Amino acid sequence: MTAAFQGELGAFSQQAIAQLLGPKARPFPCPQFDDVFAALADGNVDAAVIPIENTLYGSIHGNYDRLLKHDFVITAETRVRIVHNLIAPPETNFAQVRNVYSHQVALDQCLDFFADNKQIQRETFYDTAGSVKMVMEERPPASAAIASELAAKIYKGRILKRGIEDDRENFTRFFLLEHPGAKPRGGTARSSKPWKTSLVFTTHNTPGALFRALSALALRDLSLTKIESRPLRGKPWEYLFYIDLIGRSEDKVVKNALSHLGELCDFLRVLGTYREA
Amino acid sequence: MTAAFQGELGAFSQQAIAQLLGPKARPFPCPQFDDVFAALADGNVDAAVIPIENTLYGSIHGNYDRLLKHDFVITAETRVRIVHNLIAPPETNFAQVRNVYSHQVALDQCLDFFADNKQIQRETFYDTAGSVKMVMEERPPASAAIASELAAKIYKGRILKRGIEDDRENFTRFFLLEHPGAKPRGGTARSSKPWKTSLVFTTHNTPGALFRALSALALRDLSLTKIESRPLRGKPWEYLFYIDLIGRSEDKVVKNALSHLGELCDFLRVLGTYREA
Repeated sequence: MTAAFQGELGAFSQQAIAQLLGPKARPFPCPQFDDVFAALADGNVDAAVIPIENTLYGSIHGNYDRLLKHDFVITAETRVRIVHNLIAPPETNFAQVRNVYSHQVALDQCLDFFADNKQIQRETFYDTAGSVKMVMEERPPASAAIASELAAKIYKGRILKRGIEDDRENFTRFFLLEHPGAKPRGGTARSSKPWKTSLVFTTHNTPGALFRALSALALRDLSLTKIESRPLRGKPWEYLFYIDLIGRSEDKVVKNALSHLGELCDFLRVLGTYREA
Repeated sequence: MTAAFQGELGAFSQQAIAQLLGPKARPFPCPQFDDVFAALADGNVDAAVIPIENTLYGSIHGNYDRLLKHDFVITAETRVRIVHNLIAPPETNFAQVRNVYSHQVALDQCLDFFADNKQIQRETFYDTAGSVKMVMEERPPASAAIASELAAKIYKGRILKRGIEDDRENFTRFFLLEHPGAKPRGGTARSSKPWKTSLVFTTHNTPGALFRALSALALRDLSLTKIESRPLRGKPWEYLFYIDLIGRSEDKVVKNALSHLGELCDFLRVLGTYREA
């Protein structure tokens, strides 16, 4: 199986692919998220893996918008612990490092490291794994990169410092996307993990509309694990709501809740039902 | 009065300052949003004006996080219609233009213009108004910028094309921030505009907690106009909720709702009460 992801080989998304599809899945790197969705739409890959939220950064809002634009289904989710490592060519030792390249978000998640090492300059790069690739190929003097252990392995860099992120509660949640009709993955009959269902809807533009919509879930004791709002195109100050709930879309209670929610909404789409990570 | 804003003179935020504080208010440009908040915290300015959401782009999530980090109050809101103009030095005519500079978000909001004018290259710049400043000062050949009419005026550029944005439903909502104790602005006794109140809270981590929290508002017929969720630091997969409701924090029904909401929340803070724009 081939799965598209955004970034260079060695990205955290590649780790997500291995967790979701096993070590034999072939990662297909794409420069932009739009390319990831296009690769799946065009049939160049069997699946796509996208980050949807990070526990420090928040949601990757553009990917919520792309879920709506395309007709794919979420067939699994996974969580990757984001460990940032300082990586350099084997001949570079830590005392020599003066410039550190990485994606802005990664640099911002290692502020304590930079505060403790004032001799080191931060250099913004377009990608975490890409910064390792560049440092290994171009060998700029006194330089290192911040990225995953996998990136160090792929580009044969040496890890000078492990786990230099400020906050260890740094996780990214990923979705596996496939064409409509694909079955949820990773669930076995013995799996004890609960099911989750992801939805997107718009309410009537009336007072209390969101509360009423949520009542279709809450009054059936269905738990919400996430709610995200996004602007509704063409209707200023109205919103789309993305919700994750605990339950399988085939469960009777979830079916009833969805049918009830449909009465209360202008638009409702189930984005997928899958095992919790 | 002096008000800090992010960007160069001529930014849409400067237009928001004029709408919020009148034409005599002095705009105080800052490179980054963190500098805007710091300018107000350090007493270098009397107020700060920040964008909080755009009808196409969505929320400016970092500013929600900054509202929580600081102790300021929202004393007013306003909405600015985002009109993108193609601006060049007076000696440049449209047929000569080959490169157009602007902020990535502005370039992305003029895709039809670029599709119709394939001879023109998009060039990403750090700021909309700043791109006009650069084009006027450095005069790179065959170049123009995309920014507000105000930016054209300030840097004495000529508007070659007006309103080149794809979508006319393009508005940005701004907050006026002041030190705690400041009174709401812009409300007169005769104003027919309703009051709004902005809150942030975290719920207990139990099923149905958000629904119960919203019930404190809905069961008192208080209308929600916005809900935004942000990750809660240190508690992966838990969230802060930012809410705007119609009503004044001094109203009896809002007071009761806030007191009820307080019972249902681990944390609750009123960010401000102000007249709707």
